[in-house]
Amino acid sequence: MTARIEIVEVSPRDGLQNEKAMVSASDKAALVLKAVEAGARRVEAVSFVNPRAVPQMADADEVMARLRGQQDLRARGVSLIGLVLNRRGLDRAIAADVDEVNFVVVASETFNARNQGVPISETLRQISEAPQVARQAGLKLGVTIAAAFGCPFEGEVAVEHVARIAAELADYGVAEITLADTIGVGDPLAVETRFTAVRAVAPEAVLRAHFHNTRNTGLANAFAAWRSGVASLDASIGGIGGCPFAPAATGNVPTEDLAYMFARMGVSTGLDLPSLIDAAGWLKGVLGAPALPGMVSKAGGFPA
Amino acid sequence: MTARIEIVEVSPRDGLQNEKAMVSASDKAALVLKAVEAGARRVEAVSFVNPRAVPQMADADEVMARLRGQQDLRARGVSLIGLVLNRRGLDRAIAADVDEVNFVVVASETFNARNQGVPISETLRQISEAPQVARQAGLKLGVTIAAAFGCPFEGEVAVEHVARIAAELADYGVAEITLADTIGVGDPLAVETRFTAVRAVAPEAVLRAHFHNTRNTGLANAFAAWRSGVASLDASIGGIGGCPFAPAATGNVPTEDLAYMFARMGVSTGLDLPSLIDAAGWLKGVLGAPALPGMVSKAGGFPA
Repeated sequence: MTARIEIVEVSPRDGLQNEKAMVSASDKAALVLKAVEAGARRVEAVSFVNPRAVPQMADADEVMARLRGQQDLRARGVSLIGLVLNRRGLDRAIAADVDEVNFVVVASETFNARNQGVPISETLRQISEAPQVARQAGLKLGVTIAAAFGCPFEGEVAVEHVARIAAELADYGVAEITLADTIGVGDPLAVETRFTAVRAVAPEAVLRAHFHNTRNTGLANAFAAWRSGVASLDASIGGIGGCPFAPAATGNVPTEDLAYMFARMGVSTGLDLPSLIDAAGWLKGVLGAPALPGMVSKAGGFPA
Repeated sequence: MTARIEIVEVSPRDGLQNEKAMVSASDKAALVLKAVEAGARRVEAVSFVNPRAVPQMADADEVMARLRGQQDLRARGVSLIGLVLNRRGLDRAIAADVDEVNFVVVASETFNARNQGVPISETLRQISEAPQVARQAGLKLGVTIAAAFGCPFEGEVAVEHVARIAAELADYGVAEITLADTIGVGDPLAVETRFTAVRAVAPEAVLRAHFHNTRNTGLANAFAAWRSGVASLDASIGGIGGCPFAPAATGNVPTEDLAYMFARMGVSTGLDLPSLIDAAGWLKGVLGAPALPGMVSKAGGFPA
């Protein structure tokens, strides 16, 4: 528990990736800049994945070019993250001039095969080479263990299995390990159990959590993660993102709701609530949505 | 922390009271019975308040008559709660044959004056006489301290002020004390702080919490309350209820979402998730709403 928690803005990547609306590279870059204006210092801006599988992210190079062309974000202390699933993505991310690469391995074999087209062992082999590649390119590298709280194909995912993968990552020298509740089935006790287990096998790693609010447990899980000493939480302006496996469900934890909760708790996020609410309103317009899942945007902060 | 938590179903009262749609006494009674079928054993069925101020609850006597006429709920271990704001309401509740009376005092002077038409001191004076009146009538009596986490008129509410009111209630012999986050501004640390303070001054009282999910913190607060040793949590099927002070905001914590979270945590609520989801679907039809705020109804439980 600390008096500070870092919120990583993932709306440009995980958020938009799961929205039906196709958003222009210009609007994607604008979303990143709005997050920065609201105080975000780490933004998952793009992913370098198969454009046939994820057409929403096909313009990753253009988004990065726009961001590098417009402002000197590095001088403002902003780190742009590119998500990758394999070595090919890592090379693309380096070429696109991201600051950090976030590699993904899925905790379940079936989901890893569907998501990355290879077994977990092959994804781990590629990740084992990534820290050196990233270091030579001057990038930070983190790894997300996806579906760490449950799998849409295999059901329950054992905490021991998640810990085994985390131990591998620690052996490779991965600096940051994220546990992702990709389908929103986590609960606060599972959060405590899993992060405690990962810390035991990866004591040097910085811990980060990625929750979806699919079943309304997102903020409870975020609270439990903070209590468990997790340093960073992913969130998405407006709570956009949905979940491809639960069509009517809401997406990532809304950044503005998380910022509100921690502010009420006296825990600093560095984020400005009115700016986040403005950004959510703008994003709603871009998506042409009647409403976004975030609640503080509708109810307002407190005290007013 | 226990392996069991009681969920008090409040959709028939706090839920419907804040919905625009006027629901028939027959449907209200049906909602109570659906909650009972899903496993609820305490249901806040009605309130005995000024029908001009709260027209949705004007048929409280008819709802109770229907419930008493249909089934022997007492034989099934079901306790029906009537909410009251003053002595007049208490007498009406006794006449209507409820099992429990829930008296309300608001933690802020302005809100108490608006809600009950008298100062806090006068509400407390009436509450001081209530335990004996209830005992003579064979009823249980609890008291809710409303706006215990913040007031829409006065802003912050000091924890010491809440504790002073709780100490008064303990002196009167009130068996159950509920802290209500009436406008949905609580956070998990505030939950811990406030229940710890109340327990210190009212060690004999059973503690209960009433949260609104107005700003997405409802389940986080529920988790913190459970961790703080709170025995009972209020919730509303479908998450109905809204908040008159935040028109676009969602209402009570959805019962099905709470039941899901605790089930995942291995904490028993005695509730059946599929029955709750069915009830939420039925209620959506009764209200003529395109959707209700509850999320598990949309995403489904896990594992499926």
